[in-house]
Amino acid sequence: MHVAVLLFAFALTGTTLALDNGLMRTPPMGWLAWERYRCDIDCENDPKNCISENLFMDMADRLAEDGWKELGYVYVNIDDCWSSKQRDDQGRLQPDPKRFPGGIKKLAHYLHNRGLKLGIYGDMGKLTCMAYPGTPLDKIELDAQTFADWEVDMLKYDGCYSNAMEQELGYPLMSKALNATGRPIGYSCSWPAYQGGLPPKVNYTQLGEICNLWRNYGDIQDSWDSVLNIVDWFFENQDALTPAAGPGRWNDPDMLIIGDFGLSMEQSRSQMALWAIMAAPLFISNDLRTISSGAQSILRNEMAISINQDALGIQGRRIVKEKSGIEVFWRPLSKNASALLFFSRRTDMPYRYTTSLSKLSYTAGSYKVFNVFTDETASLKDSTEFVVSVNPTGVVMWYVSAPAKFNLRQFYQGEIFRFPFKKIIPSTRKHRNEGKRC
Amino acid sequence: MHVAVLLFAFALTGTTLALDNGLMRTPPMGWLAWERYRCDIDCENDPKNCISENLFMDMADRLAEDGWKELGYVYVNIDDCWSSKQRDDQGRLQPDPKRFPGGIKKLAHYLHNRGLKLGIYGDMGKLTCMAYPGTPLDKIELDAQTFADWEVDMLKYDGCYSNAMEQELGYPLMSKALNATGRPIGYSCSWPAYQGGLPPKVNYTQLGEICNLWRNYGDIQDSWDSVLNIVDWFFENQDALTPAAGPGRWNDPDMLIIGDFGLSMEQSRSQMALWAIMAAPLFISNDLRTISSGAQSILRNEMAISINQDALGIQGRRIVKEKSGIEVFWRPLSKNASALLFFSRRTDMPYRYTTSLSKLSYTAGSYKVFNVFTDETASLKDSTEFVVSVNPTGVVMWYVSAPAKFNLRQFYQGEIFRFPFKKIIPSTRKHRNEGKRC
Repeated sequence: MHVAVLLFAFALTGTTLALDNGLMRTPPMGWLAWERYRCDIDCENDPKNCISENLFMDMADRLAEDGWKELGYVYVNIDDCWSSKQRDDQGRLQPDPKRFPGGIKKLAHYLHNRGLKLGIYGDMGKLTCMAYPGTPLDKIELDAQTFADWEVDMLKYDGCYSNAMEQELGYPLMSKALNATGRPIGYSCSWPAYQGGLPPKVNYTQLGEICNLWRNYGDIQDSWDSVLNIVDWFFENQDALTPAAGPGRWNDPDMLIIGDFGLSMEQSRSQMALWAIMAAPLFISNDLRTISSGAQSILRNEMAISINQDALGIQGRRIVKEKSGIEVFWRPLSKNASALLFFSRRTDMPYRYTTSLSKLSYTAGSYKVFNVFTDETASLKDSTEFVVSVNPTGVVMWYVSAPAKFNLRQFYQGEIFRFPFKKIIPSTRKHRNEGKRC
Repeated sequence: MHVAVLLFAFALTGTTLALDNGLMRTPPMGWLAWERYRCDIDCENDPKNCISENLFMDMADRLAEDGWKELGYVYVNIDDCWSSKQRDDQGRLQPDPKRFPGGIKKLAHYLHNRGLKLGIYGDMGKLTCMAYPGTPLDKIELDAQTFADWEVDMLKYDGCYSNAMEQELGYPLMSKALNATGRPIGYSCSWPAYQGGLPPKVNYTQLGEICNLWRNYGDIQDSWDSVLNIVDWFFENQDALTPAAGPGRWNDPDMLIIGDFGLSMEQSRSQMALWAIMAAPLFISNDLRTISSGAQSILRNEMAISINQDALGIQGRRIVKEKSGIEVFWRPLSKNASALLFFSRRTDMPYRYTTSLSKLSYTAGSYKVFNVFTDETASLKDSTEFVVSVNPTGVVMWYVSAPAKFNLRQFYQGEIFRFPFKKIIPSTRKHRNEGKRC
């Protein structure tokens, strides 16, 4: 009875609370354990890869010593399976003593001493997704304070083993509890992913007020199919999603799998570019100790990062979807610049796509174009027809530096680039390459 | 009427004709244009990539000068879209005069001078798949003679725009016609792919008598999904397919797409390894002028090639299919050796798979194991439990040098390794890494 009254009181105050922690004015960047290391707790047989303080210290060393930190990758984030199966005798969460013998606070110091930040993981239900102790409603204040005491910098708050009503109470409550600790703690909410990710079930205005970022959709897996599935969902629902994003509040399409096992170099560039267009958090989930130079060069691409981190914080949109499998994405950037992304869904050969900036709704004028992945530059009049050769499952990404003169309200309302884009872009090339069998 | 009588006579003799050209005692290796270059005939705008004599000479230069030839990659094969849309005034096929100004014979000489061989493409119907002139029944002898006059070394005979009855006549007829020229010309038949690839519609005994290799299934595309789809089909139907293969007669799961745009390094190793297990023809379809060193090292792996080229010519089989997504393949090799392949269909993280050689039906004894992609060696007793860590969509491939003592007839009849393999391999590791969402 007491708990029920308490919950009701929380419900009244929690939903109107604004998240005023001043954090993540651009999408957060760092490293997150889950996709690559899952719930590997077998430190005896797999000591280099199990979820342990050693793994996070290893990754911190790499971020700090190999120049990742200077690029903006500063968060080192723990996911599920870090804790003991039991709370301590004062009811607090505690890390697994064998795998985190130094404790979380010491780990946080290790990171802070290197200019990095520590993220931790909790779950709104009785149990986490992997059945470790969760943080249900009656534990929220305690656990928020524990995380603050440990000097944690970010919390991913998952939603397994909770229902919609509990989530509606719990996610705002955790926001309030984190704020109440006085420690700035970035707050990642998995809430919308458990509610289908779309209005009216999901209230993105509220989310922007209580969370710094939120997972809208399912977990990424180490495959191109998974990336495509996520990209499809985010851009098919761009009218609902793009207005939600902005400084301090981000849609999160999940981790970067660049440097893992499932993506080709083309596909890796595509994920980096699409995540930049989406103003997505950039959480790498790979082994920074052994990552290839090719994957590194993509994750370290400074122009792609700067597009991702643009101060305006406007999430980009898909503006063209051709029958040929070519799609064009656009994101307005500060200084009246913009990013243009040409993407091919084809699986045959490089496709020569012909268009012009005016066909892509750029206003009259001369533009300077910078190719993000080749460093080539060019000047281009709006009316000039050009050809971009886009590799199968690959991208061509441009930073366009001259004024695009867009109207922000029209953009959000989809009036400029309502999807599907008005058909002013003809297929200029016959499709000779399809339909063959054997 | 005259033609009909002629065809009837051909039908009587053609189907009993054995292909006695002595060619391709091991699976043919080389380069084939289709997957990467398709029907790109736009030499004006895309001169480096269009189907032209320049493209084939470029690839010949690379094969000859970069050490591919010495590894066995000797065929340079033209696919569709090479010819003029019209036959010449004597009714003969002729190459497109703009794209092949020197003619095919000159191109053949260019290759022969470099120790390479030339393959060409025809189609059993009125038109090729891309609507160039085909080689229907009444043109078979003429075109076979034309190819021989041009000193061509291989023919891929496609099946678009022909029906089952025409194919039943035409494929044996072309075999006979090629033999009748007196020039050894390797003969690749697309026939089974047009008939579903399986008995009783497809007669593999007959195919082995008239063709050196045959396409059983659909075209490969530049994607991992496509590779998986092909692998699934070939191993689900291994009971029907493996007995058909042997020296001079090969199942063809289509080209290697390693070095193109759609496969990660793991997936590239997997295609190379699975094609080696399958005793598949190794036709690269990529740009040898710009191929990455990573892709090169896989295509140039001498142990993988030697397994593919094993003199016994026995096509390997899948012997284990675990619920965890781990599969094991096995191929018997000459000198009583064998190849073992561990493959992961997972998309999460490296999987530690525990087994032993005795669980994989090896007889008692001590074996020497050579890791094809890491060059590590080990000695292993049949009873020793070992762990292989298999990356997502990746493989671990072993050459096992000691006697495997298999019974060839039992192998073909699936008695040793009937699929599904008798369940003697327990899942030794709990599946802690699945089912999580957000």
